[in-house]
Parts: sequence; C-alpha cells; structure tokens
Amino acid sequence: MQLLTDQILTHVIQPRPANSYKGTFGRVLLVGGNQNFGGAIIMATMAAVHAGAGLVTTATDAVNLGSLHAQVPEAMFVNYHDKVQLSNLTSEADTIVIGPGLGDDFRSQEVLATVFANTQPDQTVVIDGSAITMMAHQKITQPAGHLIYTPHQMEWQRLSGIEIADQTTTNNLAVQQQLKATVVLKKHHTEIYEPTGQIYQLPLGTPAQATGGMGDTLAGIIGGFTAQFSDHQAAVLAAVYAHSAIAEELAETRYVVLPHQITEALPAFMQRYANQ
Amino acid sequence: MQLLTDQILTHVIQPRPANSYKGTFGRVLLVGGNQNFGGAIIMATMAAVHAGAGLVTTATDAVNLGSLHAQVPEAMFVNYHDKVQLSNLTSEADTIVIGPGLGDDFRSQEVLATVFANTQPDQTVVIDGSAITMMAHQKITQPAGHLIYTPHQMEWQRLSGIEIADQTTTNNLAVQQQLKATVVLKKHHTEIYEPTGQIYQLPLGTPAQATGGMGDTLAGIIGGFTAQFSDHQAAVLAAVYAHSAIAEELAETRYVVLPHQITEALPAFMQRYANQ
Amino acid sequence: MQLLTDQILTHVIQPRPANSYKGTFGRVLLVGGNQNFGGAIIMATMAAVHAGAGLVTTATDAVNLGSLHAQVPEAMFVNYHDKVQLSNLTSEADTIVIGPGLGDDFRSQEVLATVFANTQPDQTVVIDGSAITMMAHQKITQPAGHLIYTPHQMEWQRLSGIEIADQTTTNNLAVQQQLKATVVLKKHHTEIYEPTGQIYQLPLGTPAQATGGMGDTLAGIIGGFTAQFSDHQAAVLAAVYAHSAIAEELAETRYVVLPHQITEALPAFMQRYANQ
Amino acid sequence: MQLLTDQILTHVIQPRPANSYKGTFGRVLLVGGNQNFGGAIIMATMAAVHAGAGLVTTATDAVNLGSLHAQVPEAMFVNYHDKVQLSNLTSEADTIVIGPGLGDDFRSQEVLATVFANTQPDQTVVIDGSAITMMAHQKITQPAGHLIYTPHQMEWQRLSGIEIADQTTTNNLAVQQQLKATVVLKKHHTEIYEPTGQIYQLPLGTPAQATGGMGDTLAGIIGGFTAQFSDHQAAVLAAVYAHSAIAEELAETRYVVLPHQITEALPAFMQRYANQ
Repeated sequence: MQLLTDQILTHVIQPRPANSYKGTFGRVLLVGGNQNFGGAIIMATMAAVHAGAGLVTTATDAVNLGSLHAQVPEAMFVNYHDKVQLSNLTSEADTIVIGPGLGDDFRSQEVLATVFANTQPDQTVVIDGSAITMMAHQKITQPAGHLIYTPHQMEWQRLSGIEIADQTTTNNLAVQQQLKATVVLKKHHTEIYEPTGQIYQLPLGTPAQATGGMGDTLAGIIGGFTAQFSDHQAAVLAAVYAHSAIAEELAETRYVVLPHQITEALPAFMQRYANQ
Repeated sequence: MQLLTDQILTHVIQPRPANSYKGTFGRVLLVGGNQNFGGAIIMATMAAVHAGAGLVTTATDAVNLGSLHAQVPEAMFVNYHDKVQLSNLTSEADTIVIGPGLGDDFRSQEVLATVFANTQPDQTVVIDGSAITMMAHQKITQPAGHLIYTPHQMEWQRLSGIEIADQTTTNNLAVQQQLKATVVLKKHHTEIYEPTGQIYQLPLGTPAQATGGMGDTLAGIIGGFTAQFSDHQAAVLAAVYAHSAIAEELAETRYVVLPHQITEALPAFMQRYANQ
Repeated sequence: MQLLTDQILTHVIQPRPANSYKGTFGRVLLVGGNQNFGGAIIMATMAAVHAGAGLVTTATDAVNLGSLHAQVPEAMFVNYHDKVQLSNLTSEADTIVIGPGLGDDFRSQEVLATVFANTQPDQTVVIDGSAITMMAHQKITQPAGHLIYTPHQMEWQRLSGIEIADQTTTNNLAVQQQLKATVVLKKHHTEIYEPTGQIYQLPLGTPAQATGGMGDTLAGIIGGFTAQFSDHQAAVLAAVYAHSAIAEELAETRYVVLPHQITEALPAFMQRYANQ
Repeated sequence: MQLLTDQILTHVIQPRPANSYKGTFGRVLLVGGNQNFGGAIIMATMAAVHAGAGLVTTATDAVNLGSLHAQVPEAMFVNYHDKVQLSNLTSEADTIVIGPGLGDDFRSQEVLATVFANTQPDQTVVIDGSAITMMAHQKITQPAGHLIYTPHQMEWQRLSGIEIADQTTTNNLAVQQQLKATVVLKKHHTEIYEPTGQIYQLPLGTPAQATGGMGDTLAGIIGGFTAQFSDHQAAVLAAVYAHSAIAEELAETRYVVLPHQITEALPAFMQRYANQ
C-alpha cells in the first residue's frame, strides 16, 4: 500500500495545450437526483464543472431542473426518465457518473438499467452511492466500461459481501480484482484499489468534511478529472487527493467545510499545481 | 439566573475526532415552510447545515423544493404531506426542528400531528414558531422527546398562559417546570429555562437582528448543535450565544444583519472557539 | 427648490433602540411581478429587506415564488391572485409598495383594485411603475393612505397630463398639490415634491445606474425606510439619496452598477451614517 | 488581417453621458434555452446585463423562468412559444441575440421563424449556436438586420460549406462577403470578418476558457455592447477582445475559467478602459 502525496497532482494537472477547445476536455454525463435527493446530483455537477470538464450534462428528475440551473447554468439537462435521450447521451459521453442522489426505488432501477445498457467499453463509468446499493441488492451485472466504484464502507460491504470489520486490504483486494474495477473505498483514510492490484492510501482528510454531500462532490471531481486527463488511473488518485487537500486548507478556518466550498476552491487549487 | 459568557462556546465546540464520518454528527429533520412561508424553513435548513449537522433533511411543501436546493443543495428533501415518508424520517432523526414557516391551517396541523405521533423519547425536538401557536390553540399534547421550545414573548404567552407583562422568571419557571422542557424565551435579553430549574440569560443581542427570519435561523442552529454535541443542554446555550455573538460582530459594520449572513459566518466563528 | 445633502441620512438613520424587535421596524407589503416581470418585484423585495424593514411580504404571481426565495428567503410570499389574502395583508401592512413588474393587463388591474380597496389612511403607499400607468389610463381614484408616487418622466406625463418638455417645477407642483401626495420624479437629477409644497432636488446620480431594475430597487428602499423611520417624509428623501449615493460609490470601479449590488451595499452604507 | 489590441476597448468604451437613462443603452432581446439547454440562455442574459445593456428581455421556454430570475432578476421574461409576444418584442428590440441553447427541433425552428419574420433592417441580429445550424440544415433565408454570426468552426462549416481544414481567410471571406454579415469565427485565435472585407484576429485566449457556456457568454456580451455603443462594428470587436482578455486575467489564478466568472468581472474591467 502506497501513500499518496501531492506529487500525484503535479503529475496529473498539466498546463492545458494552447490550441484546445471544450471538446478536448471531455463530455461528462452525471446521472442521479430523484425527487428527494436532487441536491446530491447538483453538487456532483458543480464539482465536475469546476474541475474543468469540457461539457457537462446532468440527467435527473425534472423537478430538479430549476435548482440545477440556479446553481450551475454551465450544465445541460436531460430528464432521466426519457429513455431515448438518456440512452443517447450515455453512449456519447466520455465519463459517466451514476449514483449521487439516485435513490433505489423501481424508477431509479429503470434509470440504472438504461444507463448500464448503453455504456461503452472505452468509457469511464463512476458508480456511486445508491447505484452501488442497487447493484448489490438486485445482483445487477456490471456494465461495460472502465469502472470506478466509490463506496463508503457500508456500501462496500453490500457490494463485496465483506463485513466492515473484515475489510482488510487483503480481503478488499480479492473482491476488487474479481470486479476488474477501480475501487475508491471512502473511510477515515480512503483507500484506492487499482485494476493492476496496486493499492493507494490517502493520508489526508479532516473531520470538518464529515457532512452530507462530500461524497457527491468527490464523485463529480473524479468525473471531471477522468474526462479531461488522459491517464485515467492517475486522474482518480488526483481527484481523491485534491478533494481532501482542499478540505484541509479550508478547515483551518472553518469548523465544518461544506461541499460547495470545496468545489469553488477547486479551479484555483488546480492552478497552483499546474504551474509547478 | 446566570449570565452566559463565551465560555459556553469553548465548552461545547470541541475539535472533532479525527476518525469521524457524517453519521457522527447526527441527523436533523426540519419540518416547516408552507406555501407562504417557505423562506423560513430554508433559512433554518441553511443554519443547520452550516452549524455542522451530519445529515440534514427538510420536510416542507413541494413548492419549496426548487428554492431549497437553489440555496442549500446539501439538504435532502421530503414532501411533508407524504405521511409515510414524514413518519419514517421523524422516527429516524436525532434532532427534529418543527415550526419555521409551518403556518397554522388544517394542513399544517396534519403535519404537526404526524411528526408528534412519531418522535421518540431519546430524540431532541425543537418546537418553534407556529408549532407552538398550534399547540397552544389546539391544546395539543406534548410529543415524546427532549423538548426545546423557542417562543418569542407572544408565543410564550399563548403556550404558558402568562401575559407578557407577567412573564417574570418566577412565573415562567413555574410553567416551564410543568412542561419538563427547555424553554428559550426570545426577547431583548433572551432567557433559557432548563429542565433542572437553572435559568440562563443572554447578555448579548443587537437591534440589527430585529428582522424576519432571525428566529428561524436560531432554530436551525439549535438543531445543528444538539445533533452533533453530546451535552444537549449546553449545546442549546451555545447555539443561543453563537447566534447573537455573530450578529453583534456583523452589526459593527451593518445597520441590519440578515439571517443568512449569520449562517454564512457560523463555520468560521465556531472554528475560533474550537481552537481555544 | 432645495438640494439634498447627506445630512438627510444622518438625520434619518439613527442608532436603533436596544430593546426593539422586528415589529418595531414595520411590515412592508410589496405587490407586483407578473409572469413577465417577476424580477422587478424580487429586486424591490431584496431592497426592502436589506433596508431593514422588520417583516417583508411579497404579493406576486405564483410562478415567481421559487426565484423569490432563491434570492431572498427572508421575504414571505402570497399569491396576489388570492383576493382574500391580499386584502388582509394590505390592511395589516405599515407600508405598501405597489407597481414593480405588475404589468397593466386586466389581471394586473384586479390586483391593483384589491390593494387600493384595502389601504388605510395611516399607511404609507408607494405607487410605482405600471401601477401609475394603470391609474392614469384607467382614471383610477387614489387609494387611502399617505401616497408616494415614484414615476419616471413618461409615467409622470401620463399621471399628471404634463408633457415631459413642460415638466417645470411650477407645473409639476400644481398637479402634485392636487394629488396631496409625495411625488418622486425620477430623472437626471431627481426631484421630490412634498405635500407641504417643499421641493427637493437630488444632486447625485451616475449614468452607471441607467439599467433595468434601478427604479424597482428604489421603490423597495423607500418601502423599507418609511416602514421603520418615523419621519416618513424625511425617510423618502433619505431613501432617494442613499440609492444614488451608493451607486456613485460603486460606479467608481464599475462601468455599470446593477440593482442588486446597490441592495447588497445598503446595510453597510446605512451603518456609516448611523454612527455619525 | 489585423491583430486586435486593447485600443479597441479604449475606443469603444467611453464614459457614459451624464444625462442618460436606461433607454439610452438599448433594448436587448435574447432568444434561446429549450428544456435541455436553459443554462445557455441564462448565461447569455447574465452577460448582456453585466455588459451594460439598458433593458434586457429573455425569450425562453417557460421551464427556465425560475432559474433565470434566480440568476439575474434584472432580466425580463417572455415565453418564446407565445408568438404574439415574441413577434412584438423582436420588432421593438435594438439588438436580438438568437441561438444560445435554442436546440434544433421543430419547436426551435418555429421560434427561429417567428424571430426571423420580425427583425427590422436597422436592428443588430446576433446569430449563434443552433440558430446557425438550423439555418444551414434547413436552408433558411437570412433575416433583415445587421447580422453577426458567431459560429465555431463546425458551425461555420455547416453554414459556409467550407470544411474546417479549408477555412482559410480567403475562403472564409468569399462566403462571408456573400452573406453581407459580420462573422465571428470562434477558434484558437478567433477571426472577425467585417462587411467591409476587413479581417481582424484576436491574439488572446486561454485554454482555461475551453468549457461549456463560453460561447453563450460571448454572444451575450456582443448583444450588450452593440445595444449601447453606436459604432456597432467596433462594438463587436471590443466584445470579443474583452471576453478573452478577462479570461486571461482570471486564468492566472484558475485552471479553468467559468463563464459566469467572466460576466461578473465585466463591469470592473470595462471601467478601467472607460477611464483611459
């Protein structure tokens, strides 16, 4: 297990090529936000936009359209109950983030099924929150794509079958290798399991981050980073590192750090490392 | 009667344990906001989130969903006319705040009845605004839980039967002891009556605070503090103190202090005391 | 004709009494905002809240509810097509501001009629924008109350029958005296005609203010000032002065000053004069 | 081909005349924003308002009304499916911006047809995004007015028939001269083709700008500038220059520059050049 350092940021966040356009930095589709949890997909979307994704579309329940654009007009919208639009957007994206605020009722399952039926082998698919829970509970087959799971410990228990007390690196690695996916196991010191078998640990994190929406924001940053940075595995590591490094900086003067504050600090934080 | 000092902040606001997660800091359910007074429950929600509650859900009329997430995507939403969801969320919360903008018509009464039928003995229940008025006018029995009433003087008159001119500490204490509840009597120098019979007085407060929404914001801070700090009685005192101490600081350069400004200043204010 | 100076601010904006509460600073009802011009009543509401009114309610079309609370949760809402609620709120207010974004179709006329039928002799009634135009075109009788008209030159022409080229102080005064109302004639150097016959002129103003929504914001500030300051005539003068004085300050570093920027600067601006 | 310098800003952005009012600085009508792309027209509207247009109206789908006013209450609204209102507003505007987020389905085509049927020879008409695509695909005749096309390279290919690889200044000029319109060809170093045959190139631009919504924001700034500055051709050049000059400044400390950040920086940026 290797400790992450800020060298992952310097490695990943390079000055952008002068002759680039929004298409250069990828299309991200974020899927989630039912009528109860719309804020989650909004926070994930804000994070993906501030992370520098080229084009961001949010597939969510129609009740969330107004607040989405009140928070982040930069994102495009699709009603995730429109199967044709959702299918098309899924197959055209570079990175798909599914799960923030998606819920787990039968309509959420339909959305998940539509997305999973349309992902492509060359896409990055970030599977978060209730999408993980639904996969575990409904025994849903993994979709095509380079998969990145972002469970917290209870979600990982559901997906892997490993009780939290037994979630050793050895046990986790065994299941993760069967999944052939990247696993970002969110915990006190988050661990990242890569398809190669390499395990990384995040030595950062502050209890000021322990508030609702932090995971949604991380999922959005991972979406934004994997869409624009060509080394996808390193991009995941950089996203995890940046998320907590910013939180630590903000926590110096705040008892609690809210997700949107991390998001707003992201472009300036990234620029510091791009210039190194 | 004992004067509060900022020692209550130093006592209550401790550095968070390193190995904590959002569940560590409690679940708050805020209930209120009819079609006329939606801003009240939004302000209370913003306050609870910035105060550091782990997970915050707002039960309100569906017309307020869009503006809730435009202001505070960190909160989850439930339509408070959905009795099943409201019942479930009530019984699962650590702290319930009911009243901001709830109104007092028959639909508001239904919401109140659903919540009161589902609170649990070990929960903290903050009863504010029109929830107090409905209890007084409809002679509604107190719900289960550790109750905290946050009336202004007229609401206290309705609940206690004591005319404002007769609201001496002796008279107030007599009724409050029958209620077996904490009473935060909001007035020029707010008084807090504890179940033990101890009375505290707030020596702070500025007329710049005399504007709509201040009480809603205080209710939200009390909700956030009691959800995360284990000494609930001290948490109420700290919430009352912090609310006015921030207002006094902001009033040095503002003729009127708006509720959302107190809320935004809260995380940095708390951190100053956590470091002492 | 007397030139206004910032002494009007020092005179009007006094330190608030320590023992005050939100009722001390008045109830303002703002009426306007049809489906096309909702932003106008939102801007007026923001201004009234930041000006320090104790309690602010906005009567507008239901389509504007979400954006109202996204901008200013401190305000309460009523659907202005609900005649019972609108009648009740009108008769209970201290100051009524009618006109910003109201429009002039038959539904707007109904709203105007409901408000005008319910104002009280001791209330302040600020009549702005399309409310003035409807009065002129429909030959509507003046309502009860201390009336303050805030026309620009074309609206004054409609109401007074005086062509813009003929709007001399003598001509204006003659009509204004018949109206027995205060007239704030908005122009390059705004003129204020008082019921006593006294005329004031504003020596301030910047072309950076020449943008949509400025008048709505002024109407809101007048609403907030007359609701809380006991000398209503002086309060109108102070509102007019403060509005342009802030604009001039902001225009030093901005080519255009947006209405919401004036509003946000208002509490700090007022505090500077309260301390003198 | 002539390189633009900041002298275009000093030339165009002059101190405003003291005796001016909002009508002095023009009426802008922005048309776009279907149910999927509402953020685009919101961003264009924010840009036009901050650029200093006197009166701004946004014609968009009704689902976007709430978020429009949550972002920019200064703008007026019209449902773009209301043909009578859209026709009237089109014929009364000084500048029309059509295209941001308009989409290209049959309802979008109806909106385009209504606007194009009502533009006037003395108006400025900025044609952006999907409006260009629809013109090309449906072979729609150019409307009346001083036309400004703002295509990116693919949209220019559709409109002009010139493949991207063949978009030399000579080839571009030949088609643009037939159009008798200004063409702002958005690319790494944006080129502006004027009706006179003069070609300008923008030596600015940063890859931090390569994110969704940048073009919508530019269209809004062009709308605001042409509405208020009498030399329309120079106004277009100044808008293009300002947009990227601000982005470059912001990019010094940000890895990605979001469109709304450029918009918010615009009034202060303009003032620096007005004072020169």
